[in-house]
Amino acid sequence: MSDVKAALLINGEAGKDSLKNELDNLPPQVMKRVETLKQIQSQQDELYAKFLEEKAVLEIKYQKMYEPLYSKRYDIINGVIEVEEVTENDAVKGIPNFWLTAIKNNEIISMELTERDEGALIHLKDIKYSKLDDIKGFKLEFFFDPNPYFKNSILTKIYHLIDEEEPILDKAIGTKIEWYPGKCLTKKILKKKSKKGCKDAMPVIKTEKCESFFNFFDPPKILKSDEIDEDTAEEFQYSLDYDYEVGETIRDKLIPQAVLWFTGEADQESYGDYFVDDNNDNEVHDIVLEGDEKDGDDDEYEEVDEIDDEDDICDKSLEEENGAA
Amino acid sequence: MSDVKAALLINGEAGKDSLKNELDNLPPQVMKRVETLKQIQSQQDELYAKFLEEKAVLEIKYQKMYEPLYSKRYDIINGVIEVEEVTENDAVKGIPNFWLTAIKNNEIISMELTERDEGALIHLKDIKYSKLDDIKGFKLEFFFDPNPYFKNSILTKIYHLIDEEEPILDKAIGTKIEWYPGKCLTKKILKKKSKKGCKDAMPVIKTEKCESFFNFFDPPKILKSDEIDEDTAEEFQYSLDYDYEVGETIRDKLIPQAVLWFTGEADQESYGDYFVDDNNDNEVHDIVLEGDEKDGDDDEYEEVDEIDDEDDICDKSLEEENGAA
Repeated sequence: MSDVKAALLINGEAGKDSLKNELDNLPPQVMKRVETLKQIQSQQDELYAKFLEEKAVLEIKYQKMYEPLYSKRYDIINGVIEVEEVTENDAVKGIPNFWLTAIKNNEIISMELTERDEGALIHLKDIKYSKLDDIKGFKLEFFFDPNPYFKNSILTKIYHLIDEEEPILDKAIGTKIEWYPGKCLTKKILKKKSKKGCKDAMPVIKTEKCESFFNFFDPPKILKSDEIDEDTAEEFQYSLDYDYEVGETIRDKLIPQAVLWFTGEADQESYGDYFVDDNNDNEVHDIVLEGDEKDGDDDEYEEVDEIDDEDDICDKSLEEENGAA
Repeated sequence: MSDVKAALLINGEAGKDSLKNELDNLPPQVMKRVETLKQIQSQQDELYAKFLEEKAVLEIKYQKMYEPLYSKRYDIINGVIEVEEVTENDAVKGIPNFWLTAIKNNEIISMELTERDEGALIHLKDIKYSKLDDIKGFKLEFFFDPNPYFKNSILTKIYHLIDEEEPILDKAIGTKIEWYPGKCLTKKILKKKSKKGCKDAMPVIKTEKCESFFNFFDPPKILKSDEIDEDTAEEFQYSLDYDYEVGETIRDKLIPQAVLWFTGEADQESYGDYFVDDNNDNEVHDIVLEGDEKDGDDDEYEEVDEIDDEDDICDKSLEEENGAA
C-alpha cells in the first residue's frame, strides 16, 4: 500500500541541535565549502522547480488529448451515441452497470463497497479527474443520474497536497451527500424495540456508522493537536493511507482504463504469489578447509578482524555464492 | 515503505475465466459497445506511451542541466577546486567524510550501515545517477578513491524495470566487489579455537554473512520457481522492497540534495509523530430522540432499512458530524 504523509507529520525538529553542534565543530574553511555547496543546491532547486512546472504543462497537454476519447466513452456507456454495428431499435441502452462493475473489479476501490451501495452506484454515469488550478492537488468528480438515494448530481473529492511528488497530503475534502430520507448508505439505522404493553410509546431510533463506498466522501481530517497515543496514530495513518490510495487508484487506474476494469482485464497487483530463485537461497555456505572436521559447532569459533595467512577466504566464499548467478 | 513489485508477481490469470463467462452473458449489442470502448482504450494507450516518451526527454534534459552543478559539487567535496574565501595553504582537503556523513543522516540508506563500513565509505568520492539507455530502469554509480578494502574503483547498482511508473522490478544487479584479503565487510570470519596441546593443527575458519551497507551490491534475485511458503514470500518481498527503496532514496534524495543530508537539514520523513484533530474523533454520535432513555443497550435495537416517519434522521446525524468542519 502506498504511503501518504500528512503535511504536519514531516520536518521533525528533534535532533537538529545535535547536528548543528557537529557542524559547528567543522574547521571554518570546511564550513565555507559546505556553504558554497548550499548555494549550488539553491541553483539546483530552482532548476527542479522549473522541471516540475514543465512536467505539469506536459500532463495537462495530454489530459486535454484524452478528453475527446473520454467524452466518446461517456456517450457509448450512457447510450448517447450508438456504435456502428448496432441498430437503433435496441432495448438495452448503453452499457448497464458499467462503472459499478469496473469498481467491483478493483480490489482497492471496492474494499468498503457493500451490496447496499450497488443500488446507488448503478446510477453513476461518469468519473472525471482534473488537476487543481491554483493549488497543488487534484479533484475527482462522480456524475450521477437522478436517483432515489441522494439529491446531489455530482459528488466531488478533492485532495490538497503540499508536495505532489512525495505525495504529502495537506487535506482531503468530500462533498456532503444530501441523502433522501431513510436512504443514507453510510449509516445503519437501529430501532429500539418498544416494550410490551406500551402501545403509544414513541419508537427509539439511533444510527451507527457502517461500511460504504460513500464514506470516501467523508475522509479523515488532519488538524492540529498536541499528542495522540500510538495505537490511535497508527489507525489514523492507516485510514489516511487507505483514503489516499483509493483516490490515487481512481485517478491512475480506474479512470484511464475503465473498460479494462469493466472486463476484468486490467492488472490486479496481486500480492501473495511469489516466484523466487531456488539458487538464491541466501544460506551461508561454509567453506571447508584442510583440517576442518565440519562439526558445525559455532561455539568453538571466535570472530576475527583479519586473517593474513588465508588470503582468499572471502573471495572464495563470494565466488561460491555467486557461482549460480 | 514504498512497494516495488517483481515482474513475475503481477498479471495473475486466476479468476479471468469466470469474468470471461460473465462477459459472455452480455447481450451482443452491449458486447459490441464494449469492443468499441476497447478500441478507444488502444488510442488512449498510444497517447500515454507518447506522454511517457516526452516525460523521459524532459527528465534527461534536466539531468543534463544538473550535471555542471554536480560536477562543481564533486570538485569542492574532493578538493579539486577551492572556494573563493579559502586560501590555498589549507591542511584539510575538500570536505572529509562528505558522503559517509550524508548516508549516515538518512534513516533508510543507513539501515544496514555498520561501523566496519565507515572505514571504506570515507573513500567514497561521488555517487552518480543515470537512466539506462535502451531498457527501462536506472543505474547508480559509486566512485571510490583507492582504498584498502576493495580493488574496484566504481561500484554499480542497476535496476531493470518492467514499468517505471508503478514501479515493477525486472531485476537488480550489483557489481561483484573484489575485496582485498581479509577485508570483506559483508562477511564475518569466524576462527575455530585450536584444541589445547595440539600445536601444529591448522586453524579452522568459516565465514558468515553479516549486516553491511555493501550488501546493497548483492541484491535479492528474482527467478522462476513454482511455489514458496507464505513466510518466505513475505520475507522475500520485504528484502525486495528494502533494496529498491534504498536505490530510490539514493536517486531521489541523497544525490539531488547531498549537502542537505550532510548538514542534516534534509527532510527526514518521520513516521510516528502524528497530529490529529480532536474534533474529528470518528466516534458515532448518538442522536437522542424524544422517549429515548439513552440506556445504551444495543441489544434492544434492531436494524431497519427505512424509516418513513423520521425523515431527517440521517441528515441530522451527518450535520452533527460535519458540524465542526
